[in-house]
Amino acid sequence: MRIALGLEYDGAAFCGWQTQPTGCGVQDHLQRALARFADQPIEVTAAGRTDAGVHASAQVVHFDSPVSREPFSWVRGTNTFLEPQARVLWAAPVPDAFHARFDARSRTYRYLLLDAPVAPAILHGRVGWFHAPLDVAAMESALQALKGAHDFSSFRDAQCQAKSPVRDLIEARVERAGPLVAFTFRANAFLHHMVRNIVGALVYVGAGRQPPEWIASLLEARDRRLAAPTFMPDGLYLAAVEYDRALNLPPFPRHPLVDSP
Amino acid sequence: MRIALGLEYDGAAFCGWQTQPTGCGVQDHLQRALARFADQPIEVTAAGRTDAGVHASAQVVHFDSPVSREPFSWVRGTNTFLEPQARVLWAAPVPDAFHARFDARSRTYRYLLLDAPVAPAILHGRVGWFHAPLDVAAMESALQALKGAHDFSSFRDAQCQAKSPVRDLIEARVERAGPLVAFTFRANAFLHHMVRNIVGALVYVGAGRQPPEWIASLLEARDRRLAAPTFMPDGLYLAAVEYDRALNLPPFPRHPLVDSP
Repeated sequence: MRIALGLEYDGAAFCGWQTQPTGCGVQDHLQRALARFADQPIEVTAAGRTDAGVHASAQVVHFDSPVSREPFSWVRGTNTFLEPQARVLWAAPVPDAFHARFDARSRTYRYLLLDAPVAPAILHGRVGWFHAPLDVAAMESALQALKGAHDFSSFRDAQCQAKSPVRDLIEARVERAGPLVAFTFRANAFLHHMVRNIVGALVYVGAGRQPPEWIASLLEARDRRLAAPTFMPDGLYLAAVEYDRALNLPPFPRHPLVDSP
Repeated sequence: MRIALGLEYDGAAFCGWQTQPTGCGVQDHLQRALARFADQPIEVTAAGRTDAGVHASAQVVHFDSPVSREPFSWVRGTNTFLEPQARVLWAAPVPDAFHARFDARSRTYRYLLLDAPVAPAILHGRVGWFHAPLDVAAMESALQALKGAHDFSSFRDAQCQAKSPVRDLIEARVERAGPLVAFTFRANAFLHHMVRNIVGALVYVGAGRQPPEWIASLLEARDRRLAAPTFMPDGLYLAAVEYDRALNLPPFPRHPLVDSP
């Protein structure tokens, strides 16, 4: 029986999504908790393999279990054995052919950034930081060039293992969210470090270090060496994964930090 | 020369405001950072001595220093030696008679609470949690009885060392703030655990375990044993301290979590 889980986690408390020899990945922690609840080893597959320090307010995973449990029992039982910085929010039976990663039609990432003279203390590790005010209108104008299907080589990490550098950026926007600057990116899939590299370049524009047109020329150059440094992981959230509506997966609750306002 | 500092900290990273033999208090960390920057021992006094696990988005402290520095040098210099979960947001010279605690005209505390089936992961330790939906209108109606000057013995911790149990609750309200329930309390001063005890009792009302009128009868009884348990510190923030406007202290920036919406 295949089960899908909706998951929230604070990436600062783990060493990235993926399983590690030391067992510090979110995947390791989740697999251990599931195994304790189901009393047998369970392997999970996630929609998005978030890097160290990157959070998820709406990660989706699937696994196969020979034990039969009510959906909310999976939630409660797994959470009993999980660190409090990770929580299963919902569970649902899915068809045996369902695949959390390959069936995802799009992923949405949010990047929350505080542009203020002093770094965040209470939200340390949970929002990015830039020491000076950013020009949101300039960044919004600049990111128009990124929308649609493009070769994103200029925003791709050297370690990226994807076969093609082409991705379809369905949605891209930036807005003020109270004292924060909130970036939203939705694409069919993302290259390694793609959002953090785009945010790094947009911050150069927002700070007036480059004109908005620079983003379009970077994209066209298809050369990572020309772009800005990869921005810190602290403010990055996997905020939504879209599947076929016919699957009828439970919705994620609105997140107090990531989905506001 | 007397200096006032505006301070933000994540209470979960320290063992409360007050200095401890092990040096784990926010006060200890701040004094060590100030001493390293000023190259001599410095003792600070805070407006509100927050308990372990309680946060501050707007703590105010004062200290005397024989060294003369520009205000922003105090900010930058102290932050260099401070844990990232605590940040000095501003510094300002004040008259020698200024006292962060005794001159405070009122303190404002916010309590942020998630009422949802699953506890918060990303905001673990930063918001309180109740497993079922709370009736905000019932709590708002109940807390009217607390407004004004009263003997708050029913909401006072047994360890409280204040001479009088009478406090003037100038402002009290509760509202929905996205997926959170946000309580705001402003008083001339607070008794030990007063906000967490009031929130604990209001949650009984919000959950339908007690009628709104119960709060008024609790207040009148002046007996701590009748009230609800002290609510967890996780969602509690010292969010403002009010002084004579003539002092012209710098404003705190709007906090992305505590001051929204």
